[in-house]
Order: sequence, then C-alpha cells, then structure tokens
Amino acid sequence: MWLDTKLCALLKIKYPILQAPMAITTTPALAAAVAEAGGLGALGCAVLSAKEIEQQVVRYRELTGGRFPIHLNFFVHERPKRDAARDSHARKLVQRFYDDYKAGAAPEPHEPFLPLSSEIADVVIALRVEIVSFHFGIPPRDTLQRFKKAGITLMSSATTVEEAKYLEQAGIDVLIAQGWEAGGHRGTFLGSHDAGTVGTIALVPQMVDAVDVPVVAAGGIADGRGVLAALALGASGVQLGTAFLQCPEANVTEPHRQILRTAAESDTRITRAFSGRPARSLRNRYLDGLAEHDLELPDFPLMNPLSKPLRVASEAAGVPDCLPLWCGQGVRLTRPQSARDVVTILVAQVERLTTTMRSGKIAAA
Amino acid sequence: MWLDTKLCALLKIKYPILQAPMAITTTPALAAAVAEAGGLGALGCAVLSAKEIEQQVVRYRELTGGRFPIHLNFFVHERPKRDAARDSHARKLVQRFYDDYKAGAAPEPHEPFLPLSSEIADVVIALRVEIVSFHFGIPPRDTLQRFKKAGITLMSSATTVEEAKYLEQAGIDVLIAQGWEAGGHRGTFLGSHDAGTVGTIALVPQMVDAVDVPVVAAGGIADGRGVLAALALGASGVQLGTAFLQCPEANVTEPHRQILRTAAESDTRITRAFSGRPARSLRNRYLDGLAEHDLELPDFPLMNPLSKPLRVASEAAGVPDCLPLWCGQGVRLTRPQSARDVVTILVAQVERLTTTMRSGKIAAA
Repeated sequence: MWLDTKLCALLKIKYPILQAPMAITTTPALAAAVAEAGGLGALGCAVLSAKEIEQQVVRYRELTGGRFPIHLNFFVHERPKRDAARDSHARKLVQRFYDDYKAGAAPEPHEPFLPLSSEIADVVIALRVEIVSFHFGIPPRDTLQRFKKAGITLMSSATTVEEAKYLEQAGIDVLIAQGWEAGGHRGTFLGSHDAGTVGTIALVPQMVDAVDVPVVAAGGIADGRGVLAALALGASGVQLGTAFLQCPEANVTEPHRQILRTAAESDTRITRAFSGRPARSLRNRYLDGLAEHDLELPDFPLMNPLSKPLRVASEAAGVPDCLPLWCGQGVRLTRPQSARDVVTILVAQVERLTTTMRSGKIAAA
Repeated sequence: MWLDTKLCALLKIKYPILQAPMAITTTPALAAAVAEAGGLGALGCAVLSAKEIEQQVVRYRELTGGRFPIHLNFFVHERPKRDAARDSHARKLVQRFYDDYKAGAAPEPHEPFLPLSSEIADVVIALRVEIVSFHFGIPPRDTLQRFKKAGITLMSSATTVEEAKYLEQAGIDVLIAQGWEAGGHRGTFLGSHDAGTVGTIALVPQMVDAVDVPVVAAGGIADGRGVLAALALGASGVQLGTAFLQCPEANVTEPHRQILRTAAESDTRITRAFSGRPARSLRNRYLDGLAEHDLELPDFPLMNPLSKPLRVASEAAGVPDCLPLWCGQGVRLTRPQSARDVVTILVAQVERLTTTMRSGKIAAA
C-alpha cells in the first residue's frame, strides 16, 4: 500500500522502483528483469547509435512480450570548449598509465559521442518509446515538444531545487532528485558542481516542496530501508543504480564486480578523470593518480577517448586500476543477485518495515 | 509509537530528538526549551572554560527544575602541527579582509582552546552530568573509564562505518552518524576528510548493520519527513542542528539569522577557512575568497585566532561577509520559531506522516 504512489499510474508500473539508466552498464536483459518484477526497466542510450538503440528496444520488447514500458536515457550536455594546451596537458598526465600497459601514446582528445540528436529523437518517436529521460540538462524546446506530442513521459535529473523548478517549467513530467550519494555522473547543469552536492535526505523534501510534479529519489538507496525513507521524505518513487551493478544481467567488468563485493561506503570519490565531468567512482590507481589535477582536465566528453584505451587494457589485465568503477555510497547494502531478486526483495523489505519499524533496530533482509 | 525507541529509555527522554551541541551557538535556554518539549538538550562546551561549563549546567538545571538530563559535547582533536611558513602564508591570505575592516595586522595563529582536559573532566563528573559526547575522536582510555564509572552515557560522532566500529569497540554507548549534509565541523577522525563525506541516507543503514549500539542520524534532517526517514533507515533517533539556528534561544548573530531565512540547500560549502578543519557554512566573501587556498591553511584550531577578529568586525558591521555561517543542507526546511515549537512540530509531523504517507505528496507542516 505504501508503494502505491501516483507515479505508478503515470509510468504504468506496479512498484515505484526505477532501475537507473546507467550508460554502457544497462542491457535489454537487465531492463526486462526489472520490468517483469514490477519496476521500471531502463536503457542508458548516451553512447549508443540510433541503430543500437532500436536493437536494444526491440530486444527488450521480445524479452517482455511488449507488456511493459521502457525508459531511455540521453545525455544533453553542452558541447566541449576545445583548448589545445589543456588537451596536451591531459595527454601528458595520462601517459604514465599508457606506459604501464605498453599501450603507446595517449591519443588526441575528441568527442566520441554527441548530445541527443534529432536523428535519434526520430528513432525514439518511431519506436513509440514510453518514457525518455535526460541527464546534464534538457534538449531544445522543439525536441521536447515532439516527444510530448508523441505521448512520451519525460523525466530529467535535478541536483538542486533551482534545477527542479527549471525542469518543471520546461514541461518535464517527473524529476529525478539525484542526491550526492549517487554513483556515476553528477547531473548538475545549472551552477557549479559544488552547488549540486546536496545529500538525498536534504534534497528530496526541499524539492518536493518546490514543485508540483512527482519527485523520484536517487542516490544512496539500495535496500527497503532506503526506499521507505525516500517515501517518507515525500518522494513518489526511487531510482537505484548501484543495487543493480552486481546483477548477472548488467554489463559490468569482472574486476569491477570483484571490488564491489567488498567496497565500503567511504571508498568512492568524485572524479573528472574518466570523462571530463564529475562522476562518482570507487578509488583506483587512475582516479587517485589524477585527483590533484582534476580541474585541469579537458571538458566532457573529451576525456573519454583518453581514458578508454586504459579501460580496455585494465580489463584485459583483469585489474581495476584504470577502470571507471561507478559506484554509489550505498555499496555495502548491495550484493550479487538477479535483477528480479533486487526488486522483489526491496518490495518485501518495505512491506515488512512498515509493520516492524517501531521495534527499533531494523534488519535489511 | 514510532518515536518510542530504545534510545529514549537509555537517554531518559520522551522523544528521540537530540538538539545538536553546537559550540558557541548553544545556550542553557535553548537546551532547556528542547528538554521541556521532550527532546534532549545539549551544550557545546568545546571553547568553554571549566567555570563557564559549570555555570551553564547550573543555569540549565535551574531552568528545568533539574527534571531532565543534559548532554555536553567536547572536541577531542589532535593538537596542531606548527609550521611557521604555513602560518605566515595564512596571515598574508587573510590580511586583505583585515584591511577591509581597517582591523590592523592579522595576528599570529595560536591554539585558542585545547582538547578536553582532565580538569574539565573533573568538573563534568562532579556536576553529575548525564550524557557526554565527543567530536573529532575520543579521549584517552582512562578518561573514558572515569566517565563510565561515573555513570555517564557516552556518545561520539562517526562519519564512516570504520569510525563507528572503532567507537563501539572503545565503549561508546551511542553513535551520532554525521552525514555529509550536516552543518558545522565534519567529525571525521580516521582517514581523510574525503572518506567521511557519506550522505545520511547511505551512512545510517550501513552503520546500523555494522554495530550493536544505537545510531542517531544527523545531517540534512529538519522536519518530520527527515525524522521518519531516519527511523526507517534504522536510526534510533535524530540529531538536529540547523533546525534550531533560528530559535530566539540560540546564540546566533543577526546577519547569520537574516541569511538563514532565505538560504538555499545549494548555498553551503565545506571550508577550512574559519578553524582549520573542514566545516559546512553558507558561502560568504571570506569563504569564497579563501576557497582555492583551503588546503594551504594551518591545522585546526590555529585558524580560529586568524578568523575571529574578522567575525567580530563583520558582526559589528552588520554583514555576513566574514562570519562563520554554519548551516546544513536542509536549511530551506527551517524557520524562525521557538525551540519548543521545533520539537513539538517535529513530533506532530511524524505522527501525521505515519498515517498519511500513503497518500503521495507529503506536506511538511
């Protein structure tokens, strides 16, 4: 009963539990398992081509028999400012990691992907996708209007009350309140990174008070206690990422999986070293090695081509040293289990908690 | 019923709502009003002399008729390493603010107060204080033993699971889980500041799972939604600081009060500029002006004597420019009201929320 929020009707889901649309990490199998269990499955499409997006949506619908909606996420970032001195400085900074792997010379930075294009918007509309979300801002008004005319429900990440108001005014239907605890890229797009570092327990109620659209809490939530806390804060639902990283259905490297099993809440840091934008990852040699140079690195996504060969080499060597180890601060609450189990156990925990909370200490599972 | 946790029996209070023992800010009148309303009143004693502590405790007991326990907090920091070059650099950095106020030359840094002394421990024991807490670590074993023998309940701040386990093993009775959102000084004492930046919604359940002693959630909680969320996360109670800053009973400067009325969740930053240790304050000219030099400043508490004349001058000028504007990220949820009303309204909100949560959006008051 506690889980039956208005968001469920809006998104046509049984439980207000959203799988985070983590770029690269999501798969049709992951999204399908979440949907089958009553949550909202999602595909992170930021680095996918129009053709790849179509293939993944088609596959998701095959797996689910077309019975459940799908949520696609896109990056809507500002194009980077090019700066030859900054690029060259960054190449020098990362060269020692290339040397470690005998991987030659660090390449020139370039843009490996673009913000949501009109070609991809066409495909999304043609596919009759139910839900689309944005990270790092929103597309131009005409794109938003096209999506709305096509009946697509629009969601977008907000890390401050100011961003939430901006998005509501622009016609976004659901806000994802991304708290400081969240793994992966910070969605902050108005003001500085520092302005958008508000923890979930503070962000959610202040955002709920400021807007009329539903707010979904994201960041640091990984078990039934977090879900119930988010609902108490006024959220209409939750979005979980880290909780799904150890699922067999997720596209996560083996060294990343290994380190997640024993990671602590205090092991993550915000880094620009992988992409050029602040993102939360577990510490490793690459992140620590570039930490003091974080503000000297090229704009997003110019760092991607510099870090990608190192990721490939790191994974091939079976070590986490240069991998982006995306991870939120709730990591100790997660474990290796199927995506269906993640959702099913969350729901059972919330139902149990609503009757046992008064007994004091609450066991997670 | 939801508020009746084991912590209430342990601390002999009606509601598990603790007023944060904010140094300088607390007063006997504030603590007394909180206690009368059913919460736990506290006095921040870090910068008080033994005589001042005695006076404040006596006054608190007069105000409450001795009917309620009192909670005293002490800093247990490492003594600073002196570094003449660093001191001189800091004096140069702050001189421009002295010039603005025609306040002469910035003084030599020195230690304006010491960690909890045995003289003060004697006074605390002689006063039969019920509850003592520590920030920045714990005192030597023999001091802890003396407090325990005197029947004092001991609490201490933890910002990571590692710190929580350390404190439990040392015999601390109650842990204050200080989330990233909290205003004032970060309590982190094992590992780096960065390790202790975990948001409350992630920190509390992971700490609860790791220890057997009660955990009190602190950071970002300022209304009934936050209280209920903390209980859902497994906390046995909550500690609120920012929620009490606008109370007439609190010792808060007028410019600080004014800025609190319109402050946003995104307006705070972590700074070492006031004391030498990381602390959360609203932004102002002094904080912003020293932000890029934050790691160059002398150790805690050597910055206090450098910033104090500027605080005095800033307050005298009626401007917030150089004041420490301690503030947590939940600031939009706070308002000017009596301390009794803060506690009473929190309790009423929690009671209402437990019956209305299922209706979706939750109003704060």
